Amino acid sequence: MTAEAPAVGIIMGSPSDWPTMRHTADTLDKLGIAWEARITSAHRTPERLHAYATEAKSRGLKIIIAGAGLAAALPGAAAALTPLPVLGVPMEGKLMGGLDALLAIVQMPPGIPVGALAVGRPGAVNAALLAAAVLALSDPELSDRLDAYRAEQSAAVPENPEDT
Amino acid sequence: MTAEAPAVGIIMGSPSDWPTMRHTADTLDKLGIAWEARITSAHRTPERLHAYATEAKSRGLKIIIAGAGLAAALPGAAAALTPLPVLGVPMEGKLMGGLDALLAIVQMPPGIPVGALAVGRPGAVNAALLAAAVLALSDPELSDRLDAYRAEQSAAVPENPEDT
Amino acid sequence: MTAEAPAVGIIMGSPSDWPTMRHTADTLDKLGIAWEARITSAHRTPERLHAYATEAKSRGLKIIIAGAGLAAALPGAAAALTPLPVLGVPMEGKLMGGLDALLAIVQMPPGIPVGALAVGRPGAVNAALLAAAVLALSDPELSDRLDAYRAEQSAAVPENPEDT
Amino acid sequence: MTAEAPAVGIIMGSPSDWPTMRHTADTLDKLGIAWEARITSAHRTPERLHAYATEAKSRGLKIIIAGAGLAAALPGAAAALTPLPVLGVPMEGKLMGGLDALLAIVQMPPGIPVGALAVGRPGAVNAALLAAAVLALSDPELSDRLDAYRAEQSAAVPENPEDT
Amino acid sequence: MTAEAPAVGIIMGSPSDWPTMRHTADTLDKLGIAWEARITSAHRTPERLHAYATEAKSRGLKIIIAGAGLAAALPGAAAALTPLPVLGVPMEGKLMGGLDALLAIVQMPPGIPVGALAVGRPGAVNAALLAAAVLALSDPELSDRLDAYRAEQSAAVPENPEDT
Amino acid sequence: MTAEAPAVGIIMGSPSDWPTMRHTADTLDKLGIAWEARITSAHRTPERLHAYATEAKSRGLKIIIAGAGLAAALPGAAAALTPLPVLGVPMEGKLMGGLDALLAIVQMPPGIPVGALAVGRPGAVNAALLAAAVLALSDPELSDRLDAYRAEQSAAVPENPEDT
Amino acid sequence: MTAEAPAVGIIMGSPSDWPTMRHTADTLDKLGIAWEARITSAHRTPERLHAYATEAKSRGLKIIIAGAGLAAALPGAAAALTPLPVLGVPMEGKLMGGLDALLAIVQMPPGIPVGALAVGRPGAVNAALLAAAVLALSDPELSDRLDAYRAEQSAAVPENPEDT
Amino acid sequence: MTAEAPAVGIIMGSPSDWPTMRHTADTLDKLGIAWEARITSAHRTPERLHAYATEAKSRGLKIIIAGAGLAAALPGAAAALTPLPVLGVPMEGKLMGGLDALLAIVQMPPGIPVGALAVGRPGAVNAALLAAAVLALSDPELSDRLDAYRAEQSAAVPENPEDT
Repeated sequence: MTAEAPAVGIIMGSPSDWPTMRHTADTLDKLGIAWEARITSAHRTPERLHAYATEAKSRGLKIIIAGAGLAAALPGAAAALTPLPVLGVPMEGKLMGGLDALLAIVQMPPGIPVGALAVGRPGAVNAALLAAAVLALSDPELSDRLDAYRAEQSAAVPENPEDT
Repeated sequence: MTAEAPAVGIIMGSPSDWPTMRHTADTLDKLGIAWEARITSAHRTPERLHAYATEAKSRGLKIIIAGAGLAAALPGAAAALTPLPVLGVPMEGKLMGGLDALLAIVQMPPGIPVGALAVGRPGAVNAALLAAAVLALSDPELSDRLDAYRAEQSAAVPENPEDT
Repeated sequence: MTAEAPAVGIIMGSPSDWPTMRHTADTLDKLGIAWEARITSAHRTPERLHAYATEAKSRGLKIIIAGAGLAAALPGAAAALTPLPVLGVPMEGKLMGGLDALLAIVQMPPGIPVGALAVGRPGAVNAALLAAAVLALSDPELSDRLDAYRAEQSAAVPENPEDT
Repeated sequence: MTAEAPAVGIIMGSPSDWPTMRHTADTLDKLGIAWEARITSAHRTPERLHAYATEAKSRGLKIIIAGAGLAAALPGAAAALTPLPVLGVPMEGKLMGGLDALLAIVQMPPGIPVGALAVGRPGAVNAALLAAAVLALSDPELSDRLDAYRAEQSAAVPENPEDT
Repeated sequence: MTAEAPAVGIIMGSPSDWPTMRHTADTLDKLGIAWEARITSAHRTPERLHAYATEAKSRGLKIIIAGAGLAAALPGAAAALTPLPVLGVPMEGKLMGGLDALLAIVQMPPGIPVGALAVGRPGAVNAALLAAAVLALSDPELSDRLDAYRAEQSAAVPENPEDT
Repeated sequence: MTAEAPAVGIIMGSPSDWPTMRHTADTLDKLGIAWEARITSAHRTPERLHAYATEAKSRGLKIIIAGAGLAAALPGAAAALTPLPVLGVPMEGKLMGGLDALLAIVQMPPGIPVGALAVGRPGAVNAALLAAAVLALSDPELSDRLDAYRAEQSAAVPENPEDT
Repeated sequence: MTAEAPAVGIIMGSPSDWPTMRHTADTLDKLGIAWEARITSAHRTPERLHAYATEAKSRGLKIIIAGAGLAAALPGAAAALTPLPVLGVPMEGKLMGGLDALLAIVQMPPGIPVGALAVGRPGAVNAALLAAAVLALSDPELSDRLDAYRAEQSAAVPENPEDT
Repeated sequence: MTAEAPAVGIIMGSPSDWPTMRHTADTLDKLGIAWEARITSAHRTPERLHAYATEAKSRGLKIIIAGAGLAAALPGAAAALTPLPVLGVPMEGKLMGGLDALLAIVQMPPGIPVGALAVGRPGAVNAALLAAAVLALSDPELSDRLDAYRAEQSAAVPENPEDT
């Protein structure tokens, strides 16, 4: 967690989601985006979630990234309580590898949107990158850093698989 | 809706769920169980849901039956806010016939339970019957009515399919 | 198993289900609810199941919690033979992680209800909590214990994932 | 239904299954195999099913073909109560087209077997043909009729799709 | 399409996607957000897509919303070519109701993010609302309009399903 | 493999299926049913399969049990070439745990039947038991052995999971 | 069907597949590729299929395109009997929209390859186009026609969805 | 990689796909077909893919085999940019074992074809064999080698599983 006022709030339903959601934090760190992380279960701590989501905008957050598994209600529950953009990351799981969490996050009814990312680590990384793309719309320096990140990423892909 | 103080609160996320959830109400009627029905979306009216669920017990309700489709968060969101038993009915849908709603209702993480019924009309009917079985534990007259209902139901199954 | 007359009958189709269903028993223990556990396979011991389910109410049981895997017929078979509320817990499995058991438990046709919980341990814990919510409707002391359990559970959720 | 003592018992959980299971009866008719049909729901009429299945062998039946939808427990419940071979036909359904019924029929745990056929009409036809193959093992005349049926079937497949 | 310079580029793979993606355009209209719509197939017009995506930022677009069905490559292909935030809307389809398009959009590998919305009309509406939430971060007037839209939406949910 | 002329032909597509199909052989051994086992791939050795299946009846076999994985064509291919009853056992697999093999075996079009068993070991055991039920129709001694097997099986189910 | 010696053999399991597979034929016609079409069921006419597939190469065919539904064994069965490239087109179906046919075609075990196309009409069209790409490797004029077809196809995609 | 000018270009989205795609290379080696392998991500290196695919034909390649996982866009993206035949190999994955990659590869919309193989190693082997069948159409020596490969493969299938 950085000293700067966080732009991104990373929330998750359980401490067991942190090994996945840490990839969100790490990616934000690489891009120089300040973040905070909280455990706020939609089911076990609904009042804590209510407070967090309703105050998020006034506290200066710009985006919320919510990771959750199983009947993953957290992203949608947060989105219902804040006008900020909310992104959702489904956790891997035993039932079809996490299809339950994916569908619970992505299949939001019309009116309250959540932008869903891939299940597990790929989605956790990409949530940070999508948040960066959003924040870069009004932050030219971040835009440059994001361009550099993507250029480095492309350059880092080796050409020959036999060299790897 | 009956004049008596309702024992069962039927909630749903959208008016479009009523043609399904009406089967819950009709079945409760047949068993002489008073009910009320409300539209309270977990996503579009979270405050209304909060009020409804947190006051449900003090208002005298005994059970909540929640119907919802897509990323069906309503049953779990209600269960997070009330100690009453909550049953969930997934709506049919286009994505695999409603598997999204089923998983979003049944795959609750440990700590906050929802009893899930089948997708669509069968689940709506059975939610009423399961509620009746619960209420019958402390209501011998209802217990008798439920026994009679089940006996009639068994007797009504014809023996010969060619007669139908 | 407790000395008190059991209120909850935990049944399962195979001894291999016990490591999962033990979480039901442990959770009931925490809430001070007496239980008993029996292995009664719908397929391999149908007569034993018949006796158990038809006598359950007269023996003083209030709720049956049935765990089963694969073509998980046990919860529905029990529900067909008793007016008591029946809850079902699908076991994890190799075919799509247990979707077979989940669908076999939750997709009951109209007339005989089963309240389905999540696949595996989360469902086993929640079956106990839902049973507690049902029993608490007519047991104020249990209601208080359940409230306390849930309050403790909420308080035990840490705020900061990095502390975990 | 034929005058001869039936060799095949066709059972189903609901009159609504008859339009599908009639294809079983029709195919048996074509092969000159006597059958009877009964509605015996595993859930709504368990005692009727118990009587039917336990008496099936002594009544002279050789094979039971059971059609069922949703949490299709009927084939397995019958197989648990009779030593006769039991075949199961899953009904089409709204949830993934009937995958619920298919899994509930085919995923029997070890010890009590059910031979599952395809979902819907193809399975209903094939259940009759598989029953015929079984009965033909000790009935040379039926064996000849079955050979003729299959030869006609092969010959009836047109060569040129543009002629159809 | 509005006279103002468009902030949102709506792209789709086929004219047949327009009846769905029109809901994105209509929702943006309600919120006073200028948009443009183009058909640019990732597979049949890759060069057109290349030009569109690589020029999107310099042309002043802020967000791209891409709708696609089947092996829905369009959102990811656009995201690979622009630093702008890209949202994806899966079209309904015959194979499991559109699960193919949903997975092809949401399961992006780490490095190039797409925010996925629900399948079909709900996702098309929500893509517009998520885009609005993003644009509102730096547009206080839009932020007010979005708050008003959501307040109206909540108020429009009727309380009593029997009134509908 | 027994000295007696085999009644059951166990075929499989690959040596890697034997650890599963061995459960079929072991169960047949317990019931005193003679069997033989052959590897005959529908895809890699079609001529061998053709010879095996077309000669099966004249060689005195009564039933064929075919185990196969992935695009499990073997049971259907055998059934197309013999009038004998054919049972199919899907192998476990990585794609949804073997749903590919299950569907490839059970979803036979009308005209050529295959009786499908559960995926993996449970299905392999039950294929033997279903074959035994078929053979017992004309073998009273086997019928008695099968009754005894099932009685022992029922008796072997312990009552108390805590004893296990 | 064209007068020229056919390069592509279109086979299908049932006349009911022709409305889909006709799109293969129509697309081949547009590209000036001669074809023939035959109904050869892997299950109901295995001998006809055996003759067709084993003679295909000597008869001058270059590629076989096989359409099939349900437990779609036809493409794999043909591939087992010919060294020619075999492409497979899964038919739409009721079970998950045709996932059964798709998996039965695409999940071939190592050793005998089938190139699978999409379910239904898109796959039927693309099978013709993939066959054309194969044949164009040694036919420069066809290569030019295929280039022209693709250029026209790209040009025919309208830019503005509102014009459609 | 061989000294001869490669006929087959093996491309993949990530070095992590090489352990699977190496089976394609190994199988091509056994058949004496020259190949090259490149890592070209559709998402992270779209320009590299663009160059590779648009130059593939003029560089003398005959076929492209593309392996990819998750939202596996690579095969379709390559096929959009080259008239050469493109085959696709889905990588195994955690979500339903790789169904996401399979659907993203096989469900191509009409106009741009990809021939899909099975998920993982079986598909990687078969992609080489299908490429060989295509190349053998105009290479009699390769045709002989392929015949020999298949004959050896058939001969190598043991008859008796107990010998293995």
